[in-house]
Amino acid sequence: MNKDSKIDNETLRHSASHILATAVLEMFPDAKLGIGPAIEDGFYYDFLLPRTLIPEDLPLIEKKMQHLIKQNLKFEKYEEPIEEAEKFLHKTKQDLKVELVAGLKEDGETKVSFYKTGNFVDLCKGPHIDSTNKLKAVKLTHISGSYWRGDNERPQLQRIYGVAFNSKEELKEWEERMRESAKRDHRELGKKLDLFSFHHEAPGAAFWHPRGKFVYDQMVNFMKAENEKRGYEEIATPIVLSSELWKQSGHYENFKENMYFTDFEEREFAVKPMNCPGGCQLFAEKLPSYRELPIRHAEFGIVHRLELSGVLHGLLRVRQFTQDDAHIYCTPEQLEDEIVKIIEYTTDVYKSFGFENFELFIATKPEKKAIGDDTTWQKATNALENAMRKLKLDWGVKEGEGAFYGPKIEFNVKDAIGRNWQLGTCQIDFNLPERFDLNYIGEDGEKHRPVMIHRAIIGSFERFLAVLLEHTAGDLPLFLQSEVARIIPVASEFAKEGEKIMKELKSKGVRTGIDLSNDSLSKKVRNGELMKIPYLLVVGEKEAKSGKLTVRERGKEKQETISIADFIKNF
Amino acid sequence: MNKDSKIDNETLRHSASHILATAVLEMFPDAKLGIGPAIEDGFYYDFLLPRTLIPEDLPLIEKKMQHLIKQNLKFEKYEEPIEEAEKFLHKTKQDLKVELVAGLKEDGETKVSFYKTGNFVDLCKGPHIDSTNKLKAVKLTHISGSYWRGDNERPQLQRIYGVAFNSKEELKEWEERMRESAKRDHRELGKKLDLFSFHHEAPGAAFWHPRGKFVYDQMVNFMKAENEKRGYEEIATPIVLSSELWKQSGHYENFKENMYFTDFEEREFAVKPMNCPGGCQLFAEKLPSYRELPIRHAEFGIVHRLELSGVLHGLLRVRQFTQDDAHIYCTPEQLEDEIVKIIEYTTDVYKSFGFENFELFIATKPEKKAIGDDTTWQKATNALENAMRKLKLDWGVKEGEGAFYGPKIEFNVKDAIGRNWQLGTCQIDFNLPERFDLNYIGEDGEKHRPVMIHRAIIGSFERFLAVLLEHTAGDLPLFLQSEVARIIPVASEFAKEGEKIMKELKSKGVRTGIDLSNDSLSKKVRNGELMKIPYLLVVGEKEAKSGKLTVRERGKEKQETISIADFIKNF
Repeated sequence: MNKDSKIDNETLRHSASHILATAVLEMFPDAKLGIGPAIEDGFYYDFLLPRTLIPEDLPLIEKKMQHLIKQNLKFEKYEEPIEEAEKFLHKTKQDLKVELVAGLKEDGETKVSFYKTGNFVDLCKGPHIDSTNKLKAVKLTHISGSYWRGDNERPQLQRIYGVAFNSKEELKEWEERMRESAKRDHRELGKKLDLFSFHHEAPGAAFWHPRGKFVYDQMVNFMKAENEKRGYEEIATPIVLSSELWKQSGHYENFKENMYFTDFEEREFAVKPMNCPGGCQLFAEKLPSYRELPIRHAEFGIVHRLELSGVLHGLLRVRQFTQDDAHIYCTPEQLEDEIVKIIEYTTDVYKSFGFENFELFIATKPEKKAIGDDTTWQKATNALENAMRKLKLDWGVKEGEGAFYGPKIEFNVKDAIGRNWQLGTCQIDFNLPERFDLNYIGEDGEKHRPVMIHRAIIGSFERFLAVLLEHTAGDLPLFLQSEVARIIPVASEFAKEGEKIMKELKSKGVRTGIDLSNDSLSKKVRNGELMKIPYLLVVGEKEAKSGKLTVRERGKEKQETISIADFIKNF
Repeated sequence: MNKDSKIDNETLRHSASHILATAVLEMFPDAKLGIGPAIEDGFYYDFLLPRTLIPEDLPLIEKKMQHLIKQNLKFEKYEEPIEEAEKFLHKTKQDLKVELVAGLKEDGETKVSFYKTGNFVDLCKGPHIDSTNKLKAVKLTHISGSYWRGDNERPQLQRIYGVAFNSKEELKEWEERMRESAKRDHRELGKKLDLFSFHHEAPGAAFWHPRGKFVYDQMVNFMKAENEKRGYEEIATPIVLSSELWKQSGHYENFKENMYFTDFEEREFAVKPMNCPGGCQLFAEKLPSYRELPIRHAEFGIVHRLELSGVLHGLLRVRQFTQDDAHIYCTPEQLEDEIVKIIEYTTDVYKSFGFENFELFIATKPEKKAIGDDTTWQKATNALENAMRKLKLDWGVKEGEGAFYGPKIEFNVKDAIGRNWQLGTCQIDFNLPERFDLNYIGEDGEKHRPVMIHRAIIGSFERFLAVLLEHTAGDLPLFLQSEVARIIPVASEFAKEGEKIMKELKSKGVRTGIDLSNDSLSKKVRNGELMKIPYLLVVGEKEAKSGKLTVRERGKEKQETISIADFIKNF
């Protein structure tokens, strides 16, 4: 997708949100409007409404939208002094918009722009399409709750989501992708494959069943082994840490809303939302020599972040998760080389898990809030760019989207049905080394500040597994399968023979299970298929006599009869 | 130690605490007395004093005690109606004792006893020694803080600890043991071996350094592998769970004081102090058939328990720790066999870690609070006893010390200097299966309650490592050593040769490090010895030419020169 068509899509989708608002105002003249931006594939608009919407409202609203679109209404822009705008919004009782304008005024704005479409007028910067005839493929998708300005102490709004495309074909493609996504929904797969569950008592925190815990551990162990190969050392820091630490790190100021707090012995503690402050404290215990750098501390830390229960979504959006976190402390001279290593490491890992397509972005200095001078930012950004060049990689730029404490690389993967997922990150941090007074002794015998890199490749294991399940539709790579082969005795008299074979396969390192239920042969085969077991091994009289196995390999039509020795060669 | 001499010791030590109180009252006539029981090796007494004690006070108090002891004062018992006792204690302004008597009165007591020694009179049940000439070996050891009745909202008291023995020889032995213990203090070893640290920001929660994290992971991986061999499946449940769950499990009622609470979206959550309720929820998701039992769910759960900061002690008493927890659900018929397996498993593990001496205790039905009828308790206790008999093991009985929900086995190990540590536990639970309505389908097609066993072998990995460090004085078993061999180049020009050898050893699975510092050879050797590295490999010109290694094996006087191939044979 080139840059131009992307802008087109954004404009298109933003314009569709205005038409949605127009339709909703026709239906509920007293509706208060929140905001209505374009998002990936579509748009939403937030409303304060006199009643709760039901799914059946969507077709009605959509019909009104189609009616408006057919009139080929123009999008007309005009500007007004901010005081006039305030009067107008007061008069039309758009209280939420009044608040937005008040904010703009505080920021020193003197004029604002409006867009008018038919009878509908909205405070808006634009841009918009010329007229509604460009809206050839618009569809409303679902309703959810949201809070005004994301603040759960402000009024709860109702958010209507929709999609908009340049053509009916694109909409069809999207619908096809959605049907495919639904089949791949990791929450459903998690149930079917008996991997994990959620309970009301712990919103956003998974209960890992034995099969799921196996997958989880295999992912963690894979990363542990890679870390070791690549010169990382592993540490672990506490889960509950006092607010003094979070004040020192700046999280108390910037991240408090997302943290769990608790009090004891007149001290306030928080359940950690990030591993970095604990990691910095551990680094600060010693004053290493430049000869010991780079120091690469990996931590598979369990973190907790408060998310509103309304936005929790399976393993994709959770409150408790484990990161494959690492903090690298190096000299400025080592920075570029470390970044090269991180990029190589990250893309190697994605390939090992079966992701062949990924995109990299460099996020640069934010316009407003940012610490560190321009030269430092430029050097760090150069290091990121040079590393990319060295590896002959392409990258996109997210202007101003860096963290306030430094620029970063974002790693996105594309899944089997074309969706993009942000997973890994590599962030340079100018902030924490200052706040924790981190030092090393240089060649000159003096103290120096190390450069600190935060990097996560998997990101959150929970989220990564969700993406992997949806990418593979549940056919996980073999090394993540807790049951690579399942023995299916055709009748109970072959159970013993089956157990003998299981024992042999297990002794050869093939993770093997057996179905000893009273189900019929066809039911057992069907169950094995539903669980997506890679190899189903049917054992009956023929097999018991010949010492061979009848193997049904997943995804292959024909079954084969082969010796155990030959079967083991598959692994 | 036979039962009689144990009673003697208790009496002796309790009597010593009266003499301590007498001496303190001489020094501080306004002192308020708390309680003064006998404990292992000695005694303590709690006081509310007009000033904070300093260590220099101890010899002064001890001198006064010796003076009292020399007078050969008699311990004289007398009884009084409880109202008289109250009047007396009021008159002598012993407010804390007044509170104790009030408690006895509420419990329906009508008479209480006092003991008089010289001028000192104390509310006391006894028994006591006849006279102070039996106190031949008494010594005060240290001061600490405590709360009246262990309640941190009540006055803070000062506790003086002492030891008392039947003879000067026994005291000397104890002092020798203490000197040996001090050398083995796991907190000191943790620093020296660079395993872990503690910070003010997280009292009672360790920061694991790379070397310590290695030991930790090796312990966990050892248990994971054993679990798998022994038919356990691993699960993981959330860390933060809502109070609804803790009310259902009974922890809210019985364990609330030791839990961290937090609120969000108008719900109360607790950081889990135990894994069982989450485990029960997971079990309850399915209704297994009797054919699937026993189900053995292992969970390496991180738990948090609030402990007053005054009682925290290195890794031995912490707020955050990981348990090698498991919950076994079985039929009543399977119970005995499961217990046999648990006992075998537990003692096997202790032996693997180098503990050869252990004691087992059965703790039986508590007199007061206990759920379940006598028959059920008897059956369960029989199962524990029968399992012991089957394994030809001796056991002690802790009458009435079972949990309120069922009888249990406690596993104690004896360390290299004769101290006992309680580590593992195997508890039968009649409570949670009821509270969580756990069921399986029996052969009759009906629902049945499974028997639930809680078992932990390591107990807390933190505590276990503390005991292991003190037991081995830091010379951990080889499989727990992150650096089994360290290469020491005699000068910088042999660094390259050293690195070559390191690479070769690593490729053969020998965890090898190298000392590339600018230190002198003797300093490097000394550092390697301080870190208790099992093998130090000196590499100089001779070694580089001959391709051999000069090996200094820990604990051996002589060094050997052998080929790399021969060295590898050690592993």
